[in-house]
Amino acid sequence: MNLQQDSIRAIIWQDQQLQLLDQRKLPHEQIFLTFDDAVEVAQAIRDMVVRGAPAIGIAAAYAVVLAAKTAYQQNPQRWHSLIQPALQQLALARPTAVNLMWALQRMESNFAHISNDPVPILLAEAQQIHQEDVAANYKMGELGAALLPQNCCVLTHCNAGALATGGYGTALGVVRSGYAAGKVVQVYADETRPWWQGSRLTVWELMQENIPVTLIADSVAASLMQRGKIDWVIVGADRITANGDVANKIGTYSLAVLARHHGVKFMVVAPISTLDATLDSGDSIEIEQRPDTEVVSCHGQRIAANHVVVWNPVFDVTPAELVDVIVTEKGVVHQPTRDKLSQWF
Amino acid sequence: MNLQQDSIRAIIWQDQQLQLLDQRKLPHEQIFLTFDDAVEVAQAIRDMVVRGAPAIGIAAAYAVVLAAKTAYQQNPQRWHSLIQPALQQLALARPTAVNLMWALQRMESNFAHISNDPVPILLAEAQQIHQEDVAANYKMGELGAALLPQNCCVLTHCNAGALATGGYGTALGVVRSGYAAGKVVQVYADETRPWWQGSRLTVWELMQENIPVTLIADSVAASLMQRGKIDWVIVGADRITANGDVANKIGTYSLAVLARHHGVKFMVVAPISTLDATLDSGDSIEIEQRPDTEVVSCHGQRIAANHVVVWNPVFDVTPAELVDVIVTEKGVVHQPTRDKLSQWF
Repeated sequence: MNLQQDSIRAIIWQDQQLQLLDQRKLPHEQIFLTFDDAVEVAQAIRDMVVRGAPAIGIAAAYAVVLAAKTAYQQNPQRWHSLIQPALQQLALARPTAVNLMWALQRMESNFAHISNDPVPILLAEAQQIHQEDVAANYKMGELGAALLPQNCCVLTHCNAGALATGGYGTALGVVRSGYAAGKVVQVYADETRPWWQGSRLTVWELMQENIPVTLIADSVAASLMQRGKIDWVIVGADRITANGDVANKIGTYSLAVLARHHGVKFMVVAPISTLDATLDSGDSIEIEQRPDTEVVSCHGQRIAANHVVVWNPVFDVTPAELVDVIVTEKGVVHQPTRDKLSQWF
Repeated sequence: MNLQQDSIRAIIWQDQQLQLLDQRKLPHEQIFLTFDDAVEVAQAIRDMVVRGAPAIGIAAAYAVVLAAKTAYQQNPQRWHSLIQPALQQLALARPTAVNLMWALQRMESNFAHISNDPVPILLAEAQQIHQEDVAANYKMGELGAALLPQNCCVLTHCNAGALATGGYGTALGVVRSGYAAGKVVQVYADETRPWWQGSRLTVWELMQENIPVTLIADSVAASLMQRGKIDWVIVGADRITANGDVANKIGTYSLAVLARHHGVKFMVVAPISTLDATLDSGDSIEIEQRPDTEVVSCHGQRIAANHVVVWNPVFDVTPAELVDVIVTEKGVVHQPTRDKLSQWF
């Protein structure tokens, strides 16, 4: 395994600063924004400069390093308390993906053991989180690809690729591994309204590596399945509850219902950090609502009539019964249940 | 019944010319384009100045009047043959909606009986087609609304409203009648990618009449159903085959599968002219593919990466088994089958 072989990296730590590839500008502009302030990183997460559950967690981990540096410079004795407002900003940046909370808690678990400058220890931990995520993605790619048949056509939703993670990707990690193994012959990416993660990010990612990809409008997926063109739907996850329910980008649940109707397999690929044992089922997951402008406008130009009421939930919950397999870096669970998942809690 | 009470009319015959409300510009600009040439009307149909199966049929009927006028002016003895190229252009304008062919055939059926200037007779026939369509919509509105419960929440797809017909609408005719009867309390309109008929047309139509409407991204429909927020899905149709299969805007089939999964009722509202007894089942319907630009661009601005492969079928086929009821102006068919529909063929 060579962690450097994939070329797309959206999160880079360099010169004691955090660089984030601005995903609002892709695919037409590839611009890295540089951060040395944790609260600005929190805003960048809110604004979707960086998005994708694992990527948000990694960015937040680096942001803790930035916050600790600032706090330590202000007062070396009181940095533990001075850092708290920044941590709260980060925690509140986006509500649905649990990886954000997981990364913050993992960073904070080091605080008690730090007596001097916190930066070296916290930076090492953030980099460890980052590297572990990439390694987990390679492992999940291997485990997920092993489940695919020859001549496999995959439908993926949103972007669960290198851009959404530390690198390589969760769902797209499986696609990459499956393509490298000669199994995946065609990928369909839906555009993923309202934020166009499919059109803008997934298509771009796969085209970088010449993996055959065809773009469809979201509502076309059912027709593809009806024509027998899809073997597997492969998606990422923002949170998986104790019973195996999966919160992921709005539209995932729709694909899961359609897949079941057509006898198409449905795979969820997510690192262990996505599991949330504190929630019993998907009913308890907070579903983020985002601004109407995402739905009624495009590139700043109004599409819909003024003053229309909009409902813009950006995640949905797929019940465990509709999931054929959950792939994590620790292994694979077919037909997930509370009992089967409890091994990882 | 007062055919003038609805205010939205997208097709107007005035001063011996055809006026079409340019639906590419809605909702921000309300511009009528004026036509006195049938081939230009064919181009307008292709370009979606006018769209919606019944509206296309009506526009084509008026275009035959324009073509006959031109041909008769060129040569009063030979107008029957001189008109043929224009008729062919009209017939080829869009392939999926059968109402276009139906209207052309109905207009042509008059040719043999015309000895002098064809314009008065053909104009009377086109106006008759137009008026019959509006009357059919009112009748379907009444029949469809009778099926709805109190406190009914409706999801509609694309635009099957006044803009898609001679006036009042098919699916939105049922919504209008149901709202007037105090039964429909909430309408959800999906945006209907890639052409935004929901965002741009349906929302605008309903807001004109203060019918409560909420706009959602297409992939949100499943979440609404999961939450028990939808009682009926109500859509129009572009073609209904002998066995009851329904071709309609891409995404309709997806909603039909989702509705069945959630126990939500699924209603198709279409005039008799939408029935195509010549086709045995939906497998035989030609599905129009439209340009990639509809998917990869918005308001002329590129969204997706350059050179991406796109599949852009703009209709799909819902099998009769997923349709709870077909509403026509001649009556209602529950759980449509070949036998039940044969009464109208």
